[in-house]
Amino acid sequence: MSLRVAILGASGYSGAELLRYLSLRRAISGDVEIAAVTASQRAGASVASVLPQFRQSAGSSLFADLPNGLPKFSRWQDVDWQSIDIAFCALPHGTTQEVITELWRYSSLRIIDLSADFRLSSFADYEHWYGKAHGAPQLQGEAVYGLSEHFRASIGKARLVANPGCYATAAQLALLPLAPLIDCSSISIDAKSGVTGAGRSLREEFLYCEINEDFRAYSLSGHRHVAEIEQGLELALGSSASSDSASSSASSSSSDQPRLRVSFVPHLVPMDRGILTTSYLRLRAGESVSSCLAAYDNSYSGSAFIEICRDGSVPSVKLLRGTNRCSLAIFADRRPGWIVVFSAIDNLGKGAAGMALQNMNLMLGLEEDYGFADTALVP
Amino acid sequence: MSLRVAILGASGYSGAELLRYLSLRRAISGDVEIAAVTASQRAGASVASVLPQFRQSAGSSLFADLPNGLPKFSRWQDVDWQSIDIAFCALPHGTTQEVITELWRYSSLRIIDLSADFRLSSFADYEHWYGKAHGAPQLQGEAVYGLSEHFRASIGKARLVANPGCYATAAQLALLPLAPLIDCSSISIDAKSGVTGAGRSLREEFLYCEINEDFRAYSLSGHRHVAEIEQGLELALGSSASSDSASSSASSSSSDQPRLRVSFVPHLVPMDRGILTTSYLRLRAGESVSSCLAAYDNSYSGSAFIEICRDGSVPSVKLLRGTNRCSLAIFADRRPGWIVVFSAIDNLGKGAAGMALQNMNLMLGLEEDYGFADTALVP
Amino acid sequence: MSLRVAILGASGYSGAELLRYLSLRRAISGDVEIAAVTASQRAGASVASVLPQFRQSAGSSLFADLPNGLPKFSRWQDVDWQSIDIAFCALPHGTTQEVITELWRYSSLRIIDLSADFRLSSFADYEHWYGKAHGAPQLQGEAVYGLSEHFRASIGKARLVANPGCYATAAQLALLPLAPLIDCSSISIDAKSGVTGAGRSLREEFLYCEINEDFRAYSLSGHRHVAEIEQGLELALGSSASSDSASSSASSSSSDQPRLRVSFVPHLVPMDRGILTTSYLRLRAGESVSSCLAAYDNSYSGSAFIEICRDGSVPSVKLLRGTNRCSLAIFADRRPGWIVVFSAIDNLGKGAAGMALQNMNLMLGLEEDYGFADTALVP
Amino acid sequence: MSLRVAILGASGYSGAELLRYLSLRRAISGDVEIAAVTASQRAGASVASVLPQFRQSAGSSLFADLPNGLPKFSRWQDVDWQSIDIAFCALPHGTTQEVITELWRYSSLRIIDLSADFRLSSFADYEHWYGKAHGAPQLQGEAVYGLSEHFRASIGKARLVANPGCYATAAQLALLPLAPLIDCSSISIDAKSGVTGAGRSLREEFLYCEINEDFRAYSLSGHRHVAEIEQGLELALGSSASSDSASSSASSSSSDQPRLRVSFVPHLVPMDRGILTTSYLRLRAGESVSSCLAAYDNSYSGSAFIEICRDGSVPSVKLLRGTNRCSLAIFADRRPGWIVVFSAIDNLGKGAAGMALQNMNLMLGLEEDYGFADTALVP
Repeated sequence: MSLRVAILGASGYSGAELLRYLSLRRAISGDVEIAAVTASQRAGASVASVLPQFRQSAGSSLFADLPNGLPKFSRWQDVDWQSIDIAFCALPHGTTQEVITELWRYSSLRIIDLSADFRLSSFADYEHWYGKAHGAPQLQGEAVYGLSEHFRASIGKARLVANPGCYATAAQLALLPLAPLIDCSSISIDAKSGVTGAGRSLREEFLYCEINEDFRAYSLSGHRHVAEIEQGLELALGSSASSDSASSSASSSSSDQPRLRVSFVPHLVPMDRGILTTSYLRLRAGESVSSCLAAYDNSYSGSAFIEICRDGSVPSVKLLRGTNRCSLAIFADRRPGWIVVFSAIDNLGKGAAGMALQNMNLMLGLEEDYGFADTALVP
Repeated sequence: MSLRVAILGASGYSGAELLRYLSLRRAISGDVEIAAVTASQRAGASVASVLPQFRQSAGSSLFADLPNGLPKFSRWQDVDWQSIDIAFCALPHGTTQEVITELWRYSSLRIIDLSADFRLSSFADYEHWYGKAHGAPQLQGEAVYGLSEHFRASIGKARLVANPGCYATAAQLALLPLAPLIDCSSISIDAKSGVTGAGRSLREEFLYCEINEDFRAYSLSGHRHVAEIEQGLELALGSSASSDSASSSASSSSSDQPRLRVSFVPHLVPMDRGILTTSYLRLRAGESVSSCLAAYDNSYSGSAFIEICRDGSVPSVKLLRGTNRCSLAIFADRRPGWIVVFSAIDNLGKGAAGMALQNMNLMLGLEEDYGFADTALVP
Repeated sequence: MSLRVAILGASGYSGAELLRYLSLRRAISGDVEIAAVTASQRAGASVASVLPQFRQSAGSSLFADLPNGLPKFSRWQDVDWQSIDIAFCALPHGTTQEVITELWRYSSLRIIDLSADFRLSSFADYEHWYGKAHGAPQLQGEAVYGLSEHFRASIGKARLVANPGCYATAAQLALLPLAPLIDCSSISIDAKSGVTGAGRSLREEFLYCEINEDFRAYSLSGHRHVAEIEQGLELALGSSASSDSASSSASSSSSDQPRLRVSFVPHLVPMDRGILTTSYLRLRAGESVSSCLAAYDNSYSGSAFIEICRDGSVPSVKLLRGTNRCSLAIFADRRPGWIVVFSAIDNLGKGAAGMALQNMNLMLGLEEDYGFADTALVP
Repeated sequence: MSLRVAILGASGYSGAELLRYLSLRRAISGDVEIAAVTASQRAGASVASVLPQFRQSAGSSLFADLPNGLPKFSRWQDVDWQSIDIAFCALPHGTTQEVITELWRYSSLRIIDLSADFRLSSFADYEHWYGKAHGAPQLQGEAVYGLSEHFRASIGKARLVANPGCYATAAQLALLPLAPLIDCSSISIDAKSGVTGAGRSLREEFLYCEINEDFRAYSLSGHRHVAEIEQGLELALGSSASSDSASSSASSSSSDQPRLRVSFVPHLVPMDRGILTTSYLRLRAGESVSSCLAAYDNSYSGSAFIEICRDGSVPSVKLLRGTNRCSLAIFADRRPGWIVVFSAIDNLGKGAAGMALQNMNLMLGLEEDYGFADTALVP
């Protein structure tokens, strides 16, 4: 079997990381063909001219079976979608809803969307956070939230998977198993990210000299990923016994009870990759670090990409660089009855391209770590 | 007037920063003379051989009045203490208690101690956190906790000032004015520091390649600076109307009430300097961001080194690099009734050498910013 | 005496560094007043809103004598130039020639230009390197090349000083004294700069993630600073006995002899500040490391800002961070008859704002290090 | 076929990178088994406890076929060498000669040595550079210098391959094809390396705060890798028509002619990985950039890991991060008759572990890029 995959919006950091993961997969399992890469403003350009890490020597065999190596960038409208099996969509939000609406008529196409456009099941929430009405409401019900470890069954049946935001991935992997054990009205999530999290945006605040040797918070008026975290926690609280059986796209409860609110403050770290979240949580009566670790074991046993630190070591983002892994740890807080929980990922890996590949595996009925060689680049 | 100052333990990062501040002061106000610098293992060496940033050209006039520029390193036992007015002590903790006991007989000598040896007023706390009995109990009552903005009057009368720890400075400047307005049982302090905070320790974990491109927490079993923070908060709660009238070295209340406990998690940022603390706080009924800002105004009006961000900007450590300033900000949390508070400092400046100089000014009856030229090095 | 100074183009990195140096000078010698800062596109904005490192606390005394602290940004056309003594011009090249032509009629105004517009005495060279005819030919003869240590006398008499380029400063301080001792046809200058050297340009290649963890050369088709280096060397060769008596703005020799050419390759280092040049030089017969060091002594004795490493230590940019110093060293090359020469500076200090202040001192007849407190920020 | 490989000295950065490459290869071609990893001082410890990037989740399949994943560290004396096919030796130099002497009796064992112990064919050179007599002179004649692209045939027949030094790799890949075209008495190599090049040495100069934001040269008294470069150039000059037919271990010519000497100055870049060399070369009469590029084509056509920049782009170390590739470029120098040549590698990849794997392929008669998936981690 050779899967034909396309990447929409392949010129940014997430698109480039998808290409890297797919290159590795080609070397490992040989079952994918990169059939199309799109970038409207770069149409006609070679991948190597935009992403020079994909320059290759004359003697290279990596894409030797392809006529000219990787395909050139094209407009998405010019792709022969009939022939594509899987589309990874790394377009800006907003645009994505339009494009996926167009692609929907290709019924054999499965889509893994890395944008935010289909992550929130509530139209009101979408409108609140993204400042406009949802542009593809008829498709929202088709979308499954792609937090792989928590929604494997749903993802396996989906045509459209909404890959979570990078912060939302780190935070939810840490929090969802604990939701029934903690006071969900007292969740403080202190998040720190490397600069690739901002994408390749040409803004003065992301110039080297504005970031280097600095550390600061941002998005104090509210970061959009918090909406995914709250949605995930509400779902986990409402269906803690069987998270997978609940559709992530189910409409949120319309009761009058106040919505769950968490504190979430993102910070920018002078480094390329990595997210660490530090969460301060109050336990429900009777719960403990042990019962929380047991909840992790229950949720993540057999999960190839989840690693739980038990020996006093703390998650470190560098140890995950270039991987699809998530490292978790729970410590007793100095305040009795509270705990501190850490979660670390590579924001471009588990937080974007890596989980997208994992979701592809789930959609194809493969082992979730099929075709991965998940060794971190250290140092 | 020319003050004769000595620096004990001048070969580390804090000692070097003291020398830098004193060099600046010599240029600005000309009222200090660096009479002695000690470093037992370097005795006889020139300052420039150990701290090459103090190499000077033949034509330099910076220390031209001194016979040979800066004095050579000596053993502290070999200094003529009778002739010294002010001693900055940047020795390791433990050793410090011994040395200051020896120096105490020079009654005209005033001491500003940058170690941890005299920061905790409770002997039990000291023993708990430092793993041995206090080595100079008879002097503890003489020590004033040198958090300048909060204990100006006491510092002004002290012979021995215990300069706070760097994290403790950042956290307390943010929290002490708010203590009466918040639920002190729900304080979560997420702290991040540049690597100079670890000093010049030769440990594998501080090698360049172990720090660069990483981000992680440390000291999960408890960082000693939390003891200072809790001590400060208890004092602020017990005497919120008049913090300065309360001696910081007052014995803590011996009542049976449970001690205040805060959560404090330090993280290491791949950068040289700077501390940012992000604190998650629950307001008492009736309090608000506005009332908290009013408390800051009340505490810090006229404080030359405290800057309160009001325009939505967030404290940034780079903007404070090389200064003695502290930048504070308060934001409404997403959870009603909670706030997020930021505090940023240069850990070697306000967190060490800068505040030591500020305390020297207070001890001498000068304006607290006398002799400072506090412009950050940006970028 | 209070000097009234203006900074044109104060919103970039060099402008900000000028403000930092002037703030320090105000604290040290109190003889300057920052009367105007211009930035056309920011007119009306406060300095602190554009350069937040100049935010100040309510209690600060740094600019307390000024009505509202620092003046707001204005258009240069709106400045009362009659009242200004010294103008620092940090405008883009090209624009500068127009503006200075306008300012020239204020006969008491002295101008220190940090742009490239008046650095090259040959109009042909200017046109070659900057792609257009010189826009103020009548003023070029007035301009003195502001390499302080080599043209003190001329600078002292000038109304218009052309501050050298940052690379040209580092290279010429290393090479000019050696020009008569080396084979000037075999000069290879390998230069490395921190990212502030590129200014605050909003280009994708200067984004954090494009610079961090990378190292590469640039400007292979020719960096403009090489023209200054070659001009300086030709002048040094033509007048090696008395470099200061030769006007730097003298027309270059019109003989038919081939022009001197040096190799100069700049590289970008993932750090904020600093330039290191490594030059590979072939000695003339009879010359040696010793005779080269003697040439340095001859050129730089009494120079407050030049430091010559003699003990085997190598120049390091970090040791100069925030200073106006230049560190030089000469080593025997492995190839007999060759030497390796190092030169390090802070590109924003000695390479821009620091030397501008030094030139101001020379123009005013002051000691060249008057009002400096030149201690590096380490670490 | 399953190859059983051992890594001696696996706890350093090169050893860790070998493990990473071998993990990838297991995923790709499945033909290797990591049978033993040694580290005398860590014997008994798990790999994950020393190199936590190899921690794995319970569900991981990466080493699922091994009884307990990776073997524990052992003493090299305790390995069953009879059962090992390939030994990678990443021990300190000196020690290596002793250990390999012991291992030599296992006649089916092939050894790829990453230390410097067998790189220099001249005993005199070895003694000069390493300060003691060669400890295994009887084996030196067996050793083939493992610069893969230049000695493929010899490597294919060797039992002992001496993997080149990282700088020597970068420099020789750039220079060897050009040796007949240039004036080899005028070679200046300006080299820059990331900090992993120094290994995991616990020395104050490699602490984060001593490296970060600095740039400086080192080893001015002579870096050992220059000996390899000169040896390689002499060989290339002596046998430019058929470099591969000349054994790299051939005794160097004993004639009285002066030895070739090149200038080589290494610098430390504040980044983890990567080497860039910038070489300043004088062409022989009649040669040009074009003829030099033709020499590259001649040497490197069909080389899977060599990439020649032709479009004006310059080699960049970040684009090679984590790969075994070398990027080369040639530019005309500003001085007629000179060229500037760039070479970039990942010092832990092509400069150590990557080329070791490539050499293993050559020794096994496989394609040299068999089992590689050589996609850089960018950003």
